Amino acid sequence: MQPALGEFDLIRQYFSDIGPRSAEVQLSVGDDCALLSVPAGRRLAISIDTLIAGRHFPEEANAKEIATRALAVAISDLAAMGATPLAFTLAIALPQANSEWLSLFSAGLAEAADFYGIPLVGGDTTKGPLTITVQVHGSVAGNGLQRSAAQAGDSIFVTGFLGDAAAALAVIRQEIKSDTEQTGYLLDRFYRPEARVVLGQQLLGIANAAIDISDGLVADLGHIARASALAADIQVDTLPLSPVLKAVVSEPQARQFALTGGDDYELCLTVSQNNKQQLLACCRAAGVKITEIGTITPGAGVSCINGDGKPLKLSRSGYQHF
Amino acid sequence: MQPALGEFDLIRQYFSDIGPRSAEVQLSVGDDCALLSVPAGRRLAISIDTLIAGRHFPEEANAKEIATRALAVAISDLAAMGATPLAFTLAIALPQANSEWLSLFSAGLAEAADFYGIPLVGGDTTKGPLTITVQVHGSVAGNGLQRSAAQAGDSIFVTGFLGDAAAALAVIRQEIKSDTEQTGYLLDRFYRPEARVVLGQQLLGIANAAIDISDGLVADLGHIARASALAADIQVDTLPLSPVLKAVVSEPQARQFALTGGDDYELCLTVSQNNKQQLLACCRAAGVKITEIGTITPGAGVSCINGDGKPLKLSRSGYQHF
Repeated sequence: MQPALGEFDLIRQYFSDIGPRSAEVQLSVGDDCALLSVPAGRRLAISIDTLIAGRHFPEEANAKEIATRALAVAISDLAAMGATPLAFTLAIALPQANSEWLSLFSAGLAEAADFYGIPLVGGDTTKGPLTITVQVHGSVAGNGLQRSAAQAGDSIFVTGFLGDAAAALAVIRQEIKSDTEQTGYLLDRFYRPEARVVLGQQLLGIANAAIDISDGLVADLGHIARASALAADIQVDTLPLSPVLKAVVSEPQARQFALTGGDDYELCLTVSQNNKQQLLACCRAAGVKITEIGTITPGAGVSCINGDGKPLKLSRSGYQHF
Repeated sequence: MQPALGEFDLIRQYFSDIGPRSAEVQLSVGDDCALLSVPAGRRLAISIDTLIAGRHFPEEANAKEIATRALAVAISDLAAMGATPLAFTLAIALPQANSEWLSLFSAGLAEAADFYGIPLVGGDTTKGPLTITVQVHGSVAGNGLQRSAAQAGDSIFVTGFLGDAAAALAVIRQEIKSDTEQTGYLLDRFYRPEARVVLGQQLLGIANAAIDISDGLVADLGHIARASALAADIQVDTLPLSPVLKAVVSEPQARQFALTGGDDYELCLTVSQNNKQQLLACCRAAGVKITEIGTITPGAGVSCINGDGKPLKLSRSGYQHF
């Protein structure tokens, strides 16, 4: 039998040396605080996100995939602010110290931390129902990409495809059917969303407002509209739907997933007409798919407009937390 | 009946405008990230702490006291680093959105945030088993007070009284008896530990190493000893025990609580002989009780030495997380 692992052994074994070394980290895991330098003239951008087993991912999910998803979800907020990753902390509650699970989690965390170029600098490990809280720290010049900065007349764009993560959840819950290849694609979209953090930095000075799509396009675009005291019109026909999504559900269902599903962690941004060509060139160079889906207008609220110009009625507008 | 509260209403109602306004906060609760400035020439000090109901505090604890304790516990890490509070974030999982509970929690959080002069700038609210994660951000000049900087020959000091929080837990669990006044004192020490954050800043340049006592004196002083590659001797007779602690348990039990109990959030620091008078003057001016309890010596490990010069055997050395 394996000896019980203490908190400090556990940290040494699984949570040290995660992610790249960085000149901005003066003191990492193991003291009362970590010490960081924020590059001169830049602001610190921070965001904290919690994922709970059984709520934000299935209880039986692979530990490696939980780790990659947890970090991507948090980094996505840096992307939406146009911030450059600096470091992250991890507070994890574990039902028990299972070394097989911890090895996988640690490997997934290291892989994602290397991918995004962000070192783990501190954390807290406790015993409790499986809960993963990641706080990310980035640096940004000026005000970053704020939700409140949309302008009437801006075009609304989204990166990538929408609705895949919602379809993945429906597959996991056995509500829809898919073949092996389709399932693989969808689960990958749910567990390995790619935070658009490099593109986010390039959007500074091009986009007016940005948000990452975590609760669903309508809900998240609604935050931009509310914060900017404007309205948003979505042309439903233009929503970017992946071939797999269109193959596994009907078109109305695919659109519903894209509008309200959440969990895609793509960026939604608003851009003035003057900057549209620059945005398209920037996304082409970055190899990121981008689609124009609507317009910011005077008024309030988010409207979804069908190809026939009539409004689409939605059954729910986004993820409800309570 | 009250309508169900959405996450965003809940944040607006209970988690906005917590703590003082600060010129260092450029963007607070409500965007993808919060934006902060770290004062020029200073480093960012960060620490994250999770409290879980039924593990770190009793399930039935008052929401106001849970909030004050959660913030104090996190701020205590800034104190131990000598850092000046800047801002905090809060990730909270709630079983349900109960407005009475939330009002109390919010009031406690606001009270503590005002006391420590630290604004809430962001967070995440999810549904799940009651779990409170606080990340604190501070700024510090130079390297702060690190665990690894103790020197052989340093005197070891602790602030305040030790063992009260452990006695409080024993009272809560009905393992020991106390009268109303004693119970009031002890519970206050558990739920309202006072993070020594003002003193911590004054200790920069006076103390060599510091740590806050969360897992127990022996365990936490052990971290200083290990990180500094030295040993620590504690003179057990000198441990500061409160009159209430001595009244509710025997002296050996009181010492055991003081040595291994944890949860007191007092500071343990090491100071060169040259700086002792300066330390005492500083604590006198700050109105903080300080007690010399031992010496840093060459070697390894923590020894507890009785009045007769013989070593004390401990049944456990500190809080075991797993």
